[in-house]
Amino acid sequence: MSAYPNAAETAVTDTDTAAAPSLCAPLPVLGRDVTVPLVTGGEVTYAALDYAASAPALQRVWDDVAAYAPYYGSVHRGAGYLSQLSTDLFENSRTQVHEFLGCREGDQVVFTRSTTDSLGLLAAALPAGCQVFVFETEHHASLLPWRESRVTYLNAPRTPGDAVRTLERALADRDPYGPALVCVTGASNVTGELWPVRELAAAAHAHGARIVLDAAQLAPHHPVSVEELDVDWVAFSGHKLYAPFGSGVLAGRADWLREAEPYLAGGGASRTVARRSDGGVDVEWHTTAARHEAGSPNVIGVYAIASACKALTEAGFDTLVAREQHLIAKVREGLAEVPEVRVLSLFGDDAPRVGVLSFVVDGWNSSHFAAALSAEYGIGVRDGLFCAHPLVRTLLGSDPQDVGECGAPEAEPGERSLNAIRVSFGAGTPDEHVERFVRAVKELVRDGAQWKYRTEDGRCVPDRG
Amino acid sequence: MSAYPNAAETAVTDTDTAAAPSLCAPLPVLGRDVTVPLVTGGEVTYAALDYAASAPALQRVWDDVAAYAPYYGSVHRGAGYLSQLSTDLFENSRTQVHEFLGCREGDQVVFTRSTTDSLGLLAAALPAGCQVFVFETEHHASLLPWRESRVTYLNAPRTPGDAVRTLERALADRDPYGPALVCVTGASNVTGELWPVRELAAAAHAHGARIVLDAAQLAPHHPVSVEELDVDWVAFSGHKLYAPFGSGVLAGRADWLREAEPYLAGGGASRTVARRSDGGVDVEWHTTAARHEAGSPNVIGVYAIASACKALTEAGFDTLVAREQHLIAKVREGLAEVPEVRVLSLFGDDAPRVGVLSFVVDGWNSSHFAAALSAEYGIGVRDGLFCAHPLVRTLLGSDPQDVGECGAPEAEPGERSLNAIRVSFGAGTPDEHVERFVRAVKELVRDGAQWKYRTEDGRCVPDRG
Repeated sequence: MSAYPNAAETAVTDTDTAAAPSLCAPLPVLGRDVTVPLVTGGEVTYAALDYAASAPALQRVWDDVAAYAPYYGSVHRGAGYLSQLSTDLFENSRTQVHEFLGCREGDQVVFTRSTTDSLGLLAAALPAGCQVFVFETEHHASLLPWRESRVTYLNAPRTPGDAVRTLERALADRDPYGPALVCVTGASNVTGELWPVRELAAAAHAHGARIVLDAAQLAPHHPVSVEELDVDWVAFSGHKLYAPFGSGVLAGRADWLREAEPYLAGGGASRTVARRSDGGVDVEWHTTAARHEAGSPNVIGVYAIASACKALTEAGFDTLVAREQHLIAKVREGLAEVPEVRVLSLFGDDAPRVGVLSFVVDGWNSSHFAAALSAEYGIGVRDGLFCAHPLVRTLLGSDPQDVGECGAPEAEPGERSLNAIRVSFGAGTPDEHVERFVRAVKELVRDGAQWKYRTEDGRCVPDRG
Repeated sequence: MSAYPNAAETAVTDTDTAAAPSLCAPLPVLGRDVTVPLVTGGEVTYAALDYAASAPALQRVWDDVAAYAPYYGSVHRGAGYLSQLSTDLFENSRTQVHEFLGCREGDQVVFTRSTTDSLGLLAAALPAGCQVFVFETEHHASLLPWRESRVTYLNAPRTPGDAVRTLERALADRDPYGPALVCVTGASNVTGELWPVRELAAAAHAHGARIVLDAAQLAPHHPVSVEELDVDWVAFSGHKLYAPFGSGVLAGRADWLREAEPYLAGGGASRTVARRSDGGVDVEWHTTAARHEAGSPNVIGVYAIASACKALTEAGFDTLVAREQHLIAKVREGLAEVPEVRVLSLFGDDAPRVGVLSFVVDGWNSSHFAAALSAEYGIGVRDGLFCAHPLVRTLLGSDPQDVGECGAPEAEPGERSLNAIRVSFGAGTPDEHVERFVRAVKELVRDGAQWKYRTEDGRCVPDRG
């Protein structure tokens, strides 16, 4: 397995599409039967096409959480039966995540609240003098936590090979040639394109640096193996992995984590606390994952992640990837028939990707377009800059000064797009959702929206006035 | 309402106990029908008496979460119907928590993962040169996050008045007389005793200091009003407030929070991000609560807290407090009949308290006692030092060197107790649980345990060998 598969592994052809009848059914997710009202009258089943922001819970995850919830108890020092059961469930979940990620023996799995939190933890654990290298194309969660260190932002590469060469050059030129960390996404949250993680990891290690993989968008769509990719850490969020209960993961090398100050200071992270004779307090901190998990852990959130890992593994990533590639092909082929649509891409149209595509429509304000998809078709997408402002601006060719708040639409209909529309999907998405989406795009472009839309409190809504 | 009621408000007398028939029923909680096996044979309904660590979910909270879960969607920038619904639900939850806590206009409600996280956030938001004053009797979550600042640990007071005088003296003597923060618990997680919050807040303000209330143990049991208590911030956790879905709260004055560096750096906290011509990155951060909530918020966790706030408010704290005082009286009266039992107290036996009591039993290793309560009676309590090592050692009169890991039992049966047993309960506790607990304590002390217990992997288990 490679995070950046070669063409033979990823080619999506008409043959694949033709083979659709043999594809697996979508995995059952919560909300699959929810209907929503249309401004044009009536109701339709909601088409959740914003998986890249948050995916619906797998039915299996919900069922596991519901079955466990009556047995919920305080973990670690509770003497009661449910406390012991909950402690086992919590620590077994850690083991399952370790396996799901293909971690090395000795790697730690630390539970956090999200990918953002995981990268914040790693940022707080950097050794003295550590330099950080990050492409400007990253999500803000990867761009921003390093402000205490010396960060080098690398310009957007235009091919995977360019990314590797850019990184190698920057690492080779670093001065001083001390400890360094590279932070890279596995799959872009804007374009869905896969990044050459294994190659970047090799480059990092060849230059004495370490690398953390932001797998927020990769892990829900693609198998991730820390050992095979040879990355030092990996971070992801439960809520994008069909387990939206407030937990995330940082997994990888124990040494920096063990030597760092506790990320959260409090009970659970402290082994012993004692007043000193001078009035101060001596603390002995744990050296396990508990060091960074102070406070009562989110047992349900952690168990939900482990349940999702198990469900995805059992469904089989080969099967899930095949089905997702089939959906991607449908969307790409559909959008290709609309000349007014421009799909955003860093590495070119045929780059391997997960089920995440962003685009703009000539003559449309992206926010109004997204609002019409929702109000007239019951389709939930996202508009904006997707918490990756520099990347989206680079892809749109827009000036930073053009755009205000994270994705807020400031252009009027007919003006040049200052933000984009993102459609994203995954293991729970039926064909009908992407077919409806393609049909809606075609109709909106051809016929225009049936309603007018305006921005109100930063939200784009049908103009009923 | 006062956080430290006078005797007239809190006296628990035989009359109250006699009035038991008119008390409300316990609120339905998940797990109320769960049975657990006994080592002595058969099964019993589990008696969850470790509420002070984590309380079971209210059935109402679970029902609300289950009803919402199919409508879960990405919040804030999603254009779809469920995203807009989820955004409204999330922000309405913020408003409900603001009301539940009796916050002032302009106070911010920031969602965190727990009380520990909330205090960590406040610790990161202290202005330059801020000194922190904290009693050694606090939970580690309140003792430890301030390591970057100048902390003064205050010795354990033995009366509420002593606490106020000790604080006043320390604040008056501070040098330099600059910004200062007092961190104080509302109800001890060890003794359950109420602290004189309003009086301590007045003392803090009289000396130009601010005060944060650790309401982790208070909010589930007692109404909290930021405005009436005149505290600057309050922190609590969902999992102790019958909403165990991974969220917590820091609420209070906006100014320090608005001026601080973002607690988590990433999407959601950043308003705009743009490359500079020198290669760096300019960030404009939000000044609202979003500043400290980067990453996708835990919508379900936050909604669960709001649901619990609503359920407790509707049940009525007067009613809940009356019922809890009735349970406390049963436990206290029962334990008072066992001379071998010593209840731990800082402010004296009759101090007002919530449903949290810790004790030791002459001739017993506390961990073995707790293990017997579980294995032979199906009762879940906690043994250890309760993440408040200095306080428990002060109360036990033990030496710091005596005790190893957070609560791990290191004494053998018959030796002096090096840790304690804690029983705690709340809105979901039926009389039968505390009655069974009292009976179990009496039987164990009188007859001894039916099994032997030993420590294995830090856990005390029946010795089947």
